Amino acid sequence: MKEDRKVYLENVSLEEAREKLFNALGTLSEKENIKWGEVHSEKVFVDNAKNRYTSEPVFARVSSPHYHASAMDGVAVDSKDTREASLRNSVKLSLSKNEAYLVDTGEPLPEGTDAVIMIEEIEWLSEKEIEIIRSVSPWENVRNIGEDLVATEMIVPSNHKLRPVDIGAILAGGITEVKVKLPPQVAILPTGNELREPGEHLRPGDIIEYNSRMLAGYISEWDGVPYRQDKVEDDYEKLKEKIKNLSGAFDLVIVNAGSSAGREDYTYKVVGDLGEVLVHGVAIKPGKPVVIGLVNNTPIIGIPGYPVSALIALECFVKPLLDYWLMGLKKIKEDNKERPTVKAKMSKKLVSSLNALEFVRVKIGRIDEEYVVSPLKRGAGIVMSMVEADGLLEVPHMKEGFLKDEEVNVQLLKPKYLVDNALVCIGSHDITLDLLGEILHKNHYPYSLSSNNAGSMGGIMAISKGEAHLAGVHLLDPATGEYNLPVIYKYIKDEVVVVNLVHRDQGFMVNKNNPKGIKDVNDLTREDVRIINRQRGAGTRMLLDYFLEEQNILPEHIKGYDKEEVNHLSVAAAVSGGAADVGIGIRAACEALELDFIFLAKERYDLIIPKKHYRTKGVKKLLETVRSEEFKKSVVKLSGYDLSKTGEIIAEIKPD
Amino acid sequence: MKEDRKVYLENVSLEEAREKLFNALGTLSEKENIKWGEVHSEKVFVDNAKNRYTSEPVFARVSSPHYHASAMDGVAVDSKDTREASLRNSVKLSLSKNEAYLVDTGEPLPEGTDAVIMIEEIEWLSEKEIEIIRSVSPWENVRNIGEDLVATEMIVPSNHKLRPVDIGAILAGGITEVKVKLPPQVAILPTGNELREPGEHLRPGDIIEYNSRMLAGYISEWDGVPYRQDKVEDDYEKLKEKIKNLSGAFDLVIVNAGSSAGREDYTYKVVGDLGEVLVHGVAIKPGKPVVIGLVNNTPIIGIPGYPVSALIALECFVKPLLDYWLMGLKKIKEDNKERPTVKAKMSKKLVSSLNALEFVRVKIGRIDEEYVVSPLKRGAGIVMSMVEADGLLEVPHMKEGFLKDEEVNVQLLKPKYLVDNALVCIGSHDITLDLLGEILHKNHYPYSLSSNNAGSMGGIMAISKGEAHLAGVHLLDPATGEYNLPVIYKYIKDEVVVVNLVHRDQGFMVNKNNPKGIKDVNDLTREDVRIINRQRGAGTRMLLDYFLEEQNILPEHIKGYDKEEVNHLSVAAAVSGGAADVGIGIRAACEALELDFIFLAKERYDLIIPKKHYRTKGVKKLLETVRSEEFKKSVVKLSGYDLSKTGEIIAEIKPD
Repeated sequence: MKEDRKVYLENVSLEEAREKLFNALGTLSEKENIKWGEVHSEKVFVDNAKNRYTSEPVFARVSSPHYHASAMDGVAVDSKDTREASLRNSVKLSLSKNEAYLVDTGEPLPEGTDAVIMIEEIEWLSEKEIEIIRSVSPWENVRNIGEDLVATEMIVPSNHKLRPVDIGAILAGGITEVKVKLPPQVAILPTGNELREPGEHLRPGDIIEYNSRMLAGYISEWDGVPYRQDKVEDDYEKLKEKIKNLSGAFDLVIVNAGSSAGREDYTYKVVGDLGEVLVHGVAIKPGKPVVIGLVNNTPIIGIPGYPVSALIALECFVKPLLDYWLMGLKKIKEDNKERPTVKAKMSKKLVSSLNALEFVRVKIGRIDEEYVVSPLKRGAGIVMSMVEADGLLEVPHMKEGFLKDEEVNVQLLKPKYLVDNALVCIGSHDITLDLLGEILHKNHYPYSLSSNNAGSMGGIMAISKGEAHLAGVHLLDPATGEYNLPVIYKYIKDEVVVVNLVHRDQGFMVNKNNPKGIKDVNDLTREDVRIINRQRGAGTRMLLDYFLEEQNILPEHIKGYDKEEVNHLSVAAAVSGGAADVGIGIRAACEALELDFIFLAKERYDLIIPKKHYRTKGVKKLLETVRSEEFKKSVVKLSGYDLSKTGEIIAEIKPD
Repeated sequence: MKEDRKVYLENVSLEEAREKLFNALGTLSEKENIKWGEVHSEKVFVDNAKNRYTSEPVFARVSSPHYHASAMDGVAVDSKDTREASLRNSVKLSLSKNEAYLVDTGEPLPEGTDAVIMIEEIEWLSEKEIEIIRSVSPWENVRNIGEDLVATEMIVPSNHKLRPVDIGAILAGGITEVKVKLPPQVAILPTGNELREPGEHLRPGDIIEYNSRMLAGYISEWDGVPYRQDKVEDDYEKLKEKIKNLSGAFDLVIVNAGSSAGREDYTYKVVGDLGEVLVHGVAIKPGKPVVIGLVNNTPIIGIPGYPVSALIALECFVKPLLDYWLMGLKKIKEDNKERPTVKAKMSKKLVSSLNALEFVRVKIGRIDEEYVVSPLKRGAGIVMSMVEADGLLEVPHMKEGFLKDEEVNVQLLKPKYLVDNALVCIGSHDITLDLLGEILHKNHYPYSLSSNNAGSMGGIMAISKGEAHLAGVHLLDPATGEYNLPVIYKYIKDEVVVVNLVHRDQGFMVNKNNPKGIKDVNDLTREDVRIINRQRGAGTRMLLDYFLEEQNILPEHIKGYDKEEVNHLSVAAAVSGGAADVGIGIRAACEALELDFIFLAKERYDLIIPKKHYRTKGVKKLLETVRSEEFKKSVVKLSGYDLSKTGEIIAEIKPD
């Protein structure tokens, strides 16, 4: 069995991989006279040509205007007749004698006239006689033939994506049909026994087949035409038959997944057997296990199954192919960054592999006119990291990463004004923060809440370093029993306002009917009990530590103490899925996943807002939202919250 | 008649006009409880939800993964069994005894296992027995339940435009249907007796109805749904009937044109009679004559007929309405510039009216890492100014304009990499430059040629000031009879390379069969002959001046000497349209418009390229194109060109 597996992939650089692909297409065009991407065009009505790419330049057939047109509402005259007109020596012209003609903007100049006097400059002596006190030059206030477009003039070149304004100009030039490229027809083939259609019943091991939908979406956005195929099983013969057929019928074939070197990864072998593999394994992360080849003179791109890997590989290889087809663009992405970028500062150190170009999804916050970057979870399976990302940060091949505070260039994945108007909230996770963000976003767009779960202590530190607009914090001071204020006095040097968000119940989460019979913190030391903990710096972990210390229990006596999750829902999911028997967290998360809850404490969760941000419009809108009935009503639907102090100012702290 | 006309428009600022519009919508919602833009939503399948806007947040129904999944290809084990494994003390596990299970990435962990050993770390002793030399921790190489998404977690908020990646995440969360906003249904009503459909026969005064197509195109891009209506005549009753019906059936009605205060401009009166006019006349240029009102609680936007005015007014008023409907965005454009901008330097002084916010279409060139801005023609009727524009420059209300060399912020209308790769050619106009640009663009995208007709002397000056990559020049030195080189020696201080583009025939353009019997330059002084001239600094004008001086003819004795056009085609169009009897220009332009040509001279047209640009990749590609058979073949199809020296280096000039 082991001999069957090809364990190692190549690690070709992205540039080299793309070069191999484009060279192979070039060779095709030389040897076989098949110019991939340069052969197909069709004539379409201009009305239907929006967003299509011209395959030849478009020239005007008629001039615009095609007659001498009045450029104003006014009176058309022969300029010679006005030569003597002045304030002292007004000239009278008669409409009935055809010395002057009333014309509106756009109307043709009547025979014998060559200028227009603006309506505002005319004194009406009667309905048929006017007086003027200024001469006009020949062709004054006249749009000459061809002022906009002269017949035969080139309106747009070839390889040009037609915008609405181009459509207008082409129609203005008397053209009703244009020759445009046929867009590349792209087959997307999902493979895998484990795939289920959305909505189908799921058993362990089943995966919802959503990748093909994402890939199709981006292919449309890049102006290709995606064709999602029925999925095929992981079966060499079936896959071979399918790829053979698709390569004959489509301009480009994407196989997702099976591109790695695992037991049931057949793409490499099939492409090699039907045609030629150009590359297997590219030095990008995520997205390494890519297969690039040609079958039937058609490019086949095998991309990995993890959603983030699939998207990165798609952008690295499929977008350039579409650009090449539609625009003749042979250059690669480095020279062609269409996404706007911002210069930003790393909020923490980022370590990356030397062996690959890594694409890191990041949140970006604008604090005091400076952009601060925080990496999101880096797993290739975490599609939410792409949903939440404000930007994409590339760590080049052969670079170890970035230092804290290092300046980096980040590609924006969201409109800049959304990033600019996001309120950065670093600190403890609470479900009500999501609701708060949702209502803020809905009622006060483009303001939004960008939450970063770094734990309460992470929030305190972010505020002290000026890296957040606000922090969500619930930190019990064991000495005084007081929440939040002692730690602020200890760590924060600038003036802050402390506003209560909620009070909330914390406790143990256990499976329905408490199968392990957990009653209190002493049960955590039992041999048959595994816990799931929160990350260091989280207020909830510190709450657990407080109870452990009270009972003189050492962490090393608790199984799972080192196993961490970064938010309440993930803790609940770990218990619900059986990875742990008990976790500590808020009641709302517990009930969301239908677990049982063992109450431990009611705690105060506050927002800490530096004074300098407190008066900004965004924070005002946020606090308005905190105090709104809409927010409170949505929180009341959850369990374990007390809103009696919500929105109240707990303290204004002025350090000396 | 004059009493009938409302001659003056208001001059309300853009901000105030938008405020009036949004306040009126707000009042509507308070008084009549009609929340314009906040009421309509529908449920759609997620597969069909791309680019739609959520009307409520979307929460995950299932976790992803929904089971503990192997994160690697490898062998699943109980981590406890590996505790003792080390290099010195390997551990053997049997597949047949269920101590280990072969798993692929994504497969569920078999019962009793909690970790995965990567395939690369395994020594196979037989098909059913493995040896390992390293222990694994619990949950190592395992994707826990909910690692990506936990059931109940918010995936996207409301007011969110769904991207392909959002579609993926929503499907991953087990959701198959989402609630999205119905996009605003926008009626576009073209009005005017003069309108003709594209392709219809045109008589003087007829205008091709292309505006509605442009407007519809942008409304789609901004995610509204446009409905182009049949055009209506300029008739008060018909327009009233139509607007009444449309306001009942659509969410927004655009009336184009008739929005000014002319004889047949009924929009203002109709809107006032059916409902309420909020604004008539906004301090923007172009686009001033805007009518904004409410009929049947539906916003009616009357926009002017000139294409550029129509586009500017659309962006100023219709885009914010669509944003409000789709995203609840109440902020106006100033806070919401979605277009990327660049800082750039004015190439010349720009004078603008104090009374309006002016939108100037500009070309942008990147020369030596600096962006240089040149305004295009400013007429509201010149749709080509929008087609050619690289950017839009706003001159604020109450600002007189910009100085030469002043730094300005320009909104980009084209992708930045296209602007960055454009070769700026300032100088004389020649038809072959268009062909050259087309072939360069087609074969060497994203390089392009950005031509700016400033005349030969304009080109010389641009090179001397470092504002162009190359100049197209044909300047006869009367003293020596030599072309181009003397003037370069006189004005240019840096090293340049002179490359021949073409030799070309210059002469008089006259109508077919030369109705005025023009033979030579002496005929230009005749009382019955009007000429059309080229602009100051144009080589062609200087050629005319050379012939006039030879014959001792003074310009003041020539009718039309002061009437200028800036390129050969426009001169030909002026003659063809009867605005002049004769013009001077190249044979190719003459023949394009089927005029007769009277030969005057053959002249050399060269490209002047500063040495520092000569070695850049873009210029290399340009010269490659100049020397290509494809370019030469396309020029040969025109008349009056001699290609014997095309592409040859005429001189390399090193000033001392």
